Amino acid sequence: VKTEMKKIAVLGCPFDSTSSYRSGSRFAPAVIRNTLREVEDYSPHLDGDLRDIDYCDEGDVVFVNNDKEQALDLIKKTVRGILSENKMPLVLGGEHLITLPVVQAVREKYKDIKVLYLDAHCDLRDEYLGVKLSHATVARRLLDFISPGSLFQFGIRSGEREEFRFARKHGILYDFSRKKLDGVLKKIGKPPLHISIDLDILNPAIFPGTGVPDPGGISFDEFIEFIKGLKKAGIVAMDIVELSPPCDHTESSSFLAATVMREMLILAGRRKK
Amino acid sequence: VKTEMKKIAVLGCPFDSTSSYRSGSRFAPAVIRNTLREVEDYSPHLDGDLRDIDYCDEGDVVFVNNDKEQALDLIKKTVRGILSENKMPLVLGGEHLITLPVVQAVREKYKDIKVLYLDAHCDLRDEYLGVKLSHATVARRLLDFISPGSLFQFGIRSGEREEFRFARKHGILYDFSRKKLDGVLKKIGKPPLHISIDLDILNPAIFPGTGVPDPGGISFDEFIEFIKGLKKAGIVAMDIVELSPPCDHTESSSFLAATVMREMLILAGRRKK
Amino acid sequence: VKTEMKKIAVLGCPFDSTSSYRSGSRFAPAVIRNTLREVEDYSPHLDGDLRDIDYCDEGDVVFVNNDKEQALDLIKKTVRGILSENKMPLVLGGEHLITLPVVQAVREKYKDIKVLYLDAHCDLRDEYLGVKLSHATVARRLLDFISPGSLFQFGIRSGEREEFRFARKHGILYDFSRKKLDGVLKKIGKPPLHISIDLDILNPAIFPGTGVPDPGGISFDEFIEFIKGLKKAGIVAMDIVELSPPCDHTESSSFLAATVMREMLILAGRRKK
Amino acid sequence: VKTEMKKIAVLGCPFDSTSSYRSGSRFAPAVIRNTLREVEDYSPHLDGDLRDIDYCDEGDVVFVNNDKEQALDLIKKTVRGILSENKMPLVLGGEHLITLPVVQAVREKYKDIKVLYLDAHCDLRDEYLGVKLSHATVARRLLDFISPGSLFQFGIRSGEREEFRFARKHGILYDFSRKKLDGVLKKIGKPPLHISIDLDILNPAIFPGTGVPDPGGISFDEFIEFIKGLKKAGIVAMDIVELSPPCDHTESSSFLAATVMREMLILAGRRKK
Amino acid sequence: VKTEMKKIAVLGCPFDSTSSYRSGSRFAPAVIRNTLREVEDYSPHLDGDLRDIDYCDEGDVVFVNNDKEQALDLIKKTVRGILSENKMPLVLGGEHLITLPVVQAVREKYKDIKVLYLDAHCDLRDEYLGVKLSHATVARRLLDFISPGSLFQFGIRSGEREEFRFARKHGILYDFSRKKLDGVLKKIGKPPLHISIDLDILNPAIFPGTGVPDPGGISFDEFIEFIKGLKKAGIVAMDIVELSPPCDHTESSSFLAATVMREMLILAGRRKK
Amino acid sequence: VKTEMKKIAVLGCPFDSTSSYRSGSRFAPAVIRNTLREVEDYSPHLDGDLRDIDYCDEGDVVFVNNDKEQALDLIKKTVRGILSENKMPLVLGGEHLITLPVVQAVREKYKDIKVLYLDAHCDLRDEYLGVKLSHATVARRLLDFISPGSLFQFGIRSGEREEFRFARKHGILYDFSRKKLDGVLKKIGKPPLHISIDLDILNPAIFPGTGVPDPGGISFDEFIEFIKGLKKAGIVAMDIVELSPPCDHTESSSFLAATVMREMLILAGRRKK
Repeated sequence: VKTEMKKIAVLGCPFDSTSSYRSGSRFAPAVIRNTLREVEDYSPHLDGDLRDIDYCDEGDVVFVNNDKEQALDLIKKTVRGILSENKMPLVLGGEHLITLPVVQAVREKYKDIKVLYLDAHCDLRDEYLGVKLSHATVARRLLDFISPGSLFQFGIRSGEREEFRFARKHGILYDFSRKKLDGVLKKIGKPPLHISIDLDILNPAIFPGTGVPDPGGISFDEFIEFIKGLKKAGIVAMDIVELSPPCDHTESSSFLAATVMREMLILAGRRKK
Repeated sequence: VKTEMKKIAVLGCPFDSTSSYRSGSRFAPAVIRNTLREVEDYSPHLDGDLRDIDYCDEGDVVFVNNDKEQALDLIKKTVRGILSENKMPLVLGGEHLITLPVVQAVREKYKDIKVLYLDAHCDLRDEYLGVKLSHATVARRLLDFISPGSLFQFGIRSGEREEFRFARKHGILYDFSRKKLDGVLKKIGKPPLHISIDLDILNPAIFPGTGVPDPGGISFDEFIEFIKGLKKAGIVAMDIVELSPPCDHTESSSFLAATVMREMLILAGRRKK
Repeated sequence: VKTEMKKIAVLGCPFDSTSSYRSGSRFAPAVIRNTLREVEDYSPHLDGDLRDIDYCDEGDVVFVNNDKEQALDLIKKTVRGILSENKMPLVLGGEHLITLPVVQAVREKYKDIKVLYLDAHCDLRDEYLGVKLSHATVARRLLDFISPGSLFQFGIRSGEREEFRFARKHGILYDFSRKKLDGVLKKIGKPPLHISIDLDILNPAIFPGTGVPDPGGISFDEFIEFIKGLKKAGIVAMDIVELSPPCDHTESSSFLAATVMREMLILAGRRKK
Repeated sequence: VKTEMKKIAVLGCPFDSTSSYRSGSRFAPAVIRNTLREVEDYSPHLDGDLRDIDYCDEGDVVFVNNDKEQALDLIKKTVRGILSENKMPLVLGGEHLITLPVVQAVREKYKDIKVLYLDAHCDLRDEYLGVKLSHATVARRLLDFISPGSLFQFGIRSGEREEFRFARKHGILYDFSRKKLDGVLKKIGKPPLHISIDLDILNPAIFPGTGVPDPGGISFDEFIEFIKGLKKAGIVAMDIVELSPPCDHTESSSFLAATVMREMLILAGRRKK
Repeated sequence: VKTEMKKIAVLGCPFDSTSSYRSGSRFAPAVIRNTLREVEDYSPHLDGDLRDIDYCDEGDVVFVNNDKEQALDLIKKTVRGILSENKMPLVLGGEHLITLPVVQAVREKYKDIKVLYLDAHCDLRDEYLGVKLSHATVARRLLDFISPGSLFQFGIRSGEREEFRFARKHGILYDFSRKKLDGVLKKIGKPPLHISIDLDILNPAIFPGTGVPDPGGISFDEFIEFIKGLKKAGIVAMDIVELSPPCDHTESSSFLAATVMREMLILAGRRKK
Repeated sequence: VKTEMKKIAVLGCPFDSTSSYRSGSRFAPAVIRNTLREVEDYSPHLDGDLRDIDYCDEGDVVFVNNDKEQALDLIKKTVRGILSENKMPLVLGGEHLITLPVVQAVREKYKDIKVLYLDAHCDLRDEYLGVKLSHATVARRLLDFISPGSLFQFGIRSGEREEFRFARKHGILYDFSRKKLDGVLKKIGKPPLHISIDLDILNPAIFPGTGVPDPGGISFDEFIEFIKGLKKAGIVAMDIVELSPPCDHTESSSFLAATVMREMLILAGRRKK
């Protein structure tokens, strides 16, 4: 696959209807865009500047929150359209379930896609409260059409015993560290990559604004160090999910989410001509 | 129909997945029960005491929030069960859509049921964002199986022009006042009544804790005066919906919801033997 | 008794340890003083100006919140000292229990004291959870040393059935209205008056910042109209209680409390010479 | 003057730098626009629909918050531009000081402009903390170029004694009521009108989201009744000021502000052709 | 002493009346239980599952918050009862003072009890504001009946100079680290242990929901590493104190408290048969 | 210059009018003083006690927030007065712009002053939105009268590319570490030092209460270790800026700010005689 840098197309997916505890991630795309304007364009972490990056904003997918199938279908179609224009989608959730239609569309184009899955939670249940399509099952649903060897979960710290057993059995789990990432990248070579960033992988100290603030988690510095390892990996699609603005009283979670978006744009985007 | 006072069965329906703006009413049943313990048992408004009332708590219906059909079906079945034991259901939402399965079950038992619908919003759209089953369409869905002459909306202050036209054409709308209520009751005689209380009928000043706090609305004193008119009406089922605890920072909305529940229990419940 | 206007001495009593639900009124004296600086000196309601009023601030009584007897004793002694200097105490709670030692001290000086008791709650339990001294029993404790004919409760909207029965039996309860007040004042002549203002008498819409926000209650305009009736009554002592700043997210309750304090100072204070 | 209905141009002025207590009204234009999308298009109060109204949004004036003179100058120029295109400006503050440049621009076009000034506060100080241009002096600054007979203040409930004296001496103050408005309109005939709506005229119960939540104030119903009296008055410009979103935890103030905007658009705007 | 794993009995003690700053820990037992239902049963940290643990919930001790002696006495009696049934108490505060009656009861059964005291604060004052029984004196009160050699304080970062001097003199203070713990355990052998966890030992970044959020403190990972050192120590009783839900706007502190509870249950509980 | 320890004079500067996003630091001096009373006098970090330190509080500079020049001028004059009495100013902001007049006054007395500048942001823009005097330009304004070799920025993690280039070109930037500090101090010898502490240098996890919560930043332990390196450096003036209490829902930021103030008083203040 060719992995030249592409123009990035930002797409908002304000979907949160399978949230089982505190919902609200439907408000994230609007808040992240708004906060991005308050964040500096320049990243001292990556020594890059948003003003140099070639990206556009395709707005939000419009759907009915409680018609799940329709919503997921619309997301898939919209991402498919972005890919058909040879752009790289950066999808803003919404809850983690939106990763499913995104990866489905991505895989239509990139058959050998590998998925880096950054998350606090396994999301490997086969069903959750009797439901197959849920934020708690999304990683498992990915395995319906990609092999376990194509899924790499980093930073997991919460889940059922059965999920951990399943993940360990299939060798999906990795500690969150640059070193582990480097090892993975070395092993798999340079296939097209999708990176899915569930922001709750970050410590609730710096990211309290999410539905389920599980103790533990990584620091912002660890996150930056990790993504530096992806500079020359062949990222072809990205998503950033699970900011819940109503849970973010101090706006520090929104600033973090917007900063993560800036870093990913600078990391994966091509320079303007 | 016989309208003797019955034992009341409280039932929680923590369903809020069609909320289009701020959801959170799924947390209401737990919060209302909890707050009721902080509210006095005695109502000086009705001169009655909760300690005298014969009621029980049947807990919550357990369902998956985002599987709408399943959830509504379970609610209907549970209410049917309560009615089959000759109890009077007092259903705590959740969003207003839960009124649909409740009234469906009630009508199976009481064919000539009339519905008093207290709300800020018409809820008379035929569909909302392409969806037939929604908090914004629930009154219209009731009209799929009861006639417009059986639906009485009080306190409406918000809706689309088309909804108001429809409502006026079918004579559904009434100003919120004791006098209007007395007129209605005089006209319809004493059929079995369902009363559906969307708490957002109250002024956001006293009830800010709801998804869509529309300006205007009634005072608590007006509400009390209104329900006094129902003392001898034949209430056979009730629901109280749309408290959203995450929007209720001061807990004043929760106290109001719990107090409304106390008043309805005292108003409609039979005395313990 | 002579009821000439006196110099007013403001005294803070940051005591809230018998609060059974949400405490926090211990922070009220500091917050009210602070907010008073943001409120205009001039009252258009009474056409008077704080800059003309002769008053001083005696600071807070310092005590240990959880040593109730010691705290109440210190409050009594401090109020006694203020009275001995021929000043009029304006005591800022804290919870309503602080009214007990205040009235005890006041009665040592004014044997025929009458108490106007503005509150949402009866506070007439003989004991509460086995305890005699509590915010829920304070009015009853007053009756240990003044007769029921000396206690006038206005605005009560919450209590146990037994409290209402007791209150009605002893003729203590009055509707909150200027007319009722005028009737009372006409009947009792002009004895020395203590006025105790539990701010939760006000509607939670305008005063959400209190431990127990019971629905109903009076408006600010009704409050102003009421106290205008007291212009020439012989007030000799006052207290303002039950603001809980941690429950007052918008600061509107604090502004209301500070404004009530301003009005009482202008109403009852003598002009500077 | 010709008072035919005009196309309305909405203009945001996110200026709040003279706020002396809690600032934050700079965030209001963005929040009001956002919330307007959640409010129904149809007003049952005025029986009109936003979808029929001919208006456009000119975005925000961009300036440096702490360079007051520059900011006010830019606002004036922008409003002048709107008027030169024969549109009617509806200006969203920001703090009340923005009314000054707006009325300055309006008066360049309409020499005999009259100003209806709805507010909780007089704003008639000649200077505030040594400063001539302030939210607390804006009404006085208007009097630098319009006569007291052209300024009509409704709903004032807070100010210094000197301001009230000044206002009464010049006959500026009117009680807030439809009747008073009708009297004023009858007396002045039908000159071009500017209406300035400081939202803090509303009771903090329904509008807590403002810097200084003074007790008292009008209800939403009173507001609606008042503006109905303006249906055929010759409004040529409007402003809506002093929503402070950071003080509006429940969003009820934002809903109120957006609803007021809808009502003013329907009241004063011409129908689309 | 025999230290076989026992059935654990959870007991809530909603007592917070000696809190000198922000109270609210009285609401913690209810909130922790509620949040525990949202936390996964499985701990990847300890590789154990709550579903395997033999424990029961004995509900809350019911007392009057402001009758300190009575409350402490009831707690002691209840814990004594639990111990007499050969269960291991896991007590949920409430404020830290509740540790006193708990350890008193525990010591009746285990004469050679040693206390591990995890806290940000020394709590070694002999009296606080003239009071002997207080959250600020509780460790000192323990020394009234156990020797300094039986008390081990970890993580202390705040106190009076006199408290630190006292603690250093008696060799009570230990840095918070697994290594220090291992040293202590090696030295003392394997006597029965009580572990008292004041959650404010954790960094306010991850545990802001407490009355006094002192800067500094440990991370969740450090906490987990520490308790792993206790796997085979002879814990016979535990308490978890000082979560204050009203200070926990984001619920992240509640999730942390519930997770700590899960870890302690898995660490110290016996497996179901 | 003689660097003997001096009496410290605390001065509040409640100025925040150039804040471009969320303002509110005007409330910081009052809140820090208030919270300092809740913090222990003893610092276990520095093993010193506030009760031993010779310092006084000079209150706040009183000015009009939106008359920037006047405010800055008053601050300069007041600091000059403090220095003329041979005291060491500890200035509490307000926003970072207040450092400008403080250093101006300090440099009048100490010609060879060096400035340690702890901050998340460069503040090195030459102008910000067309304005020369701003929180975003303050470090650059310092360079108008001190040389780049006299300015040492630690902890910077946010800024424009141009600012970083400028800073690197002039050798102003240093990583935040004790080692770097020791190196700097060794190189420059012992000139008089001003230390300016923008609290947003701390991680938003522990200091969310600021206008712009940029991800990353230092821990409290790192801060303490750093300032220990300053024990014998010749500090002659200090400022602590950018706490914004309205953004500090949990009060943890206020506790941190008050603790930083305590540490700086103990570090730099002379002992009482």
